[in-house]
Amino acid sequence: MNTNIYGSKITRLIEEFSKLPGIGHKTAQRLAFYLLSQPASRAESLADAIVGARHGAMYCSICCNITDVDPCAICSSARRDKSLIMVVETPKDLAAYENTNNYSGLYHVLHGAINPIAGIRPEHIKAAELVRRLGNMKDEVKEVILATNTTVEGEATAVYISKLLAPLGVTVSRIAHGIPVGGDLEYVDAVTLIRALEGRRGM
Amino acid sequence: MNTNIYGSKITRLIEEFSKLPGIGHKTAQRLAFYLLSQPASRAESLADAIVGARHGAMYCSICCNITDVDPCAICSSARRDKSLIMVVETPKDLAAYENTNNYSGLYHVLHGAINPIAGIRPEHIKAAELVRRLGNMKDEVKEVILATNTTVEGEATAVYISKLLAPLGVTVSRIAHGIPVGGDLEYVDAVTLIRALEGRRGM
Repeated sequence: MNTNIYGSKITRLIEEFSKLPGIGHKTAQRLAFYLLSQPASRAESLADAIVGARHGAMYCSICCNITDVDPCAICSSARRDKSLIMVVETPKDLAAYENTNNYSGLYHVLHGAINPIAGIRPEHIKAAELVRRLGNMKDEVKEVILATNTTVEGEATAVYISKLLAPLGVTVSRIAHGIPVGGDLEYVDAVTLIRALEGRRGM
Repeated sequence: MNTNIYGSKITRLIEEFSKLPGIGHKTAQRLAFYLLSQPASRAESLADAIVGARHGAMYCSICCNITDVDPCAICSSARRDKSLIMVVETPKDLAAYENTNNYSGLYHVLHGAINPIAGIRPEHIKAAELVRRLGNMKDEVKEVILATNTTVEGEATAVYISKLLAPLGVTVSRIAHGIPVGGDLEYVDAVTLIRALEGRRGM
């Protein structure tokens, strides 16, 4: 790759964009030329947002969600149902449930799932924080909903956490596995079909 | 979309990323969380590159390529063949030819192609700059190679420029149309097949 076609500053911008996940050299080039074609204030605004967010970002001391105020907007909201805690792997999973506008409880973000092959052990996820949190507010919390992914790692994490919480005497549930809404049975994998059958409910 | 899940700074970063071309909300979220998970120096380095490139960027006064030094590295290189000028639509097209390591002439970047429907008329592309450039260095330049895209707009632009250059008496050529290398005739469109036949050469 000839790297000095545009001069060092523009080449450096393309390289910086290339380092982002899922951004290849061509996309990086496209993004760079787009920014160069915009008013300088657009570029400054992006740069400013990057630095501002990075310096403001922290984990919520209650739920471990990424936030720039502690406790986060969800934990400090008076309108949330404090008797429910949904345990998710990542802030993106939290966002997915928030965007349903159908859950008003609290969350706990683990920041990962147990994955021995990748070297992610139970102490690497924010499970101890959940136990500590429940110890502090056990009387308030009625149910912990495990919403880790339905992958091997997510399932292992759900099992691990349910065992961890057993001595606390709190109700622990798992989100349902089954056919996705709009899903065609013909194209659904066997494991999901079996889980959907096992999870059948009266009509 | 619930926009206050992460606090205003992180939300703003996601919004800024979303404004980039080809970056949807999910990708923007992924990029933002990636940056938040990296050392602060990574985020600063990206922000710095954005501002630096945007403020340093200009058009080369000779070839109109985007650069941060004027004239650009290609125009000021002693190792380039100054008798050839390849006319391309965008800096990315220039980069594509540079990366072949098989062309050592100069370039001229039009920054667009004539497209009346989109309101891009001849005066909106850097064609006048090419005529002026050739006027200044006509004795040096032996050939102008039109390497605009093989789209309707690119073809129209090539025809327009060849007519524009006709009075100058410089040789004007067009890059070949034909079957792409590795291309299977079965899947090549009829127009390309016809062009490939027309452009056949002795073996």
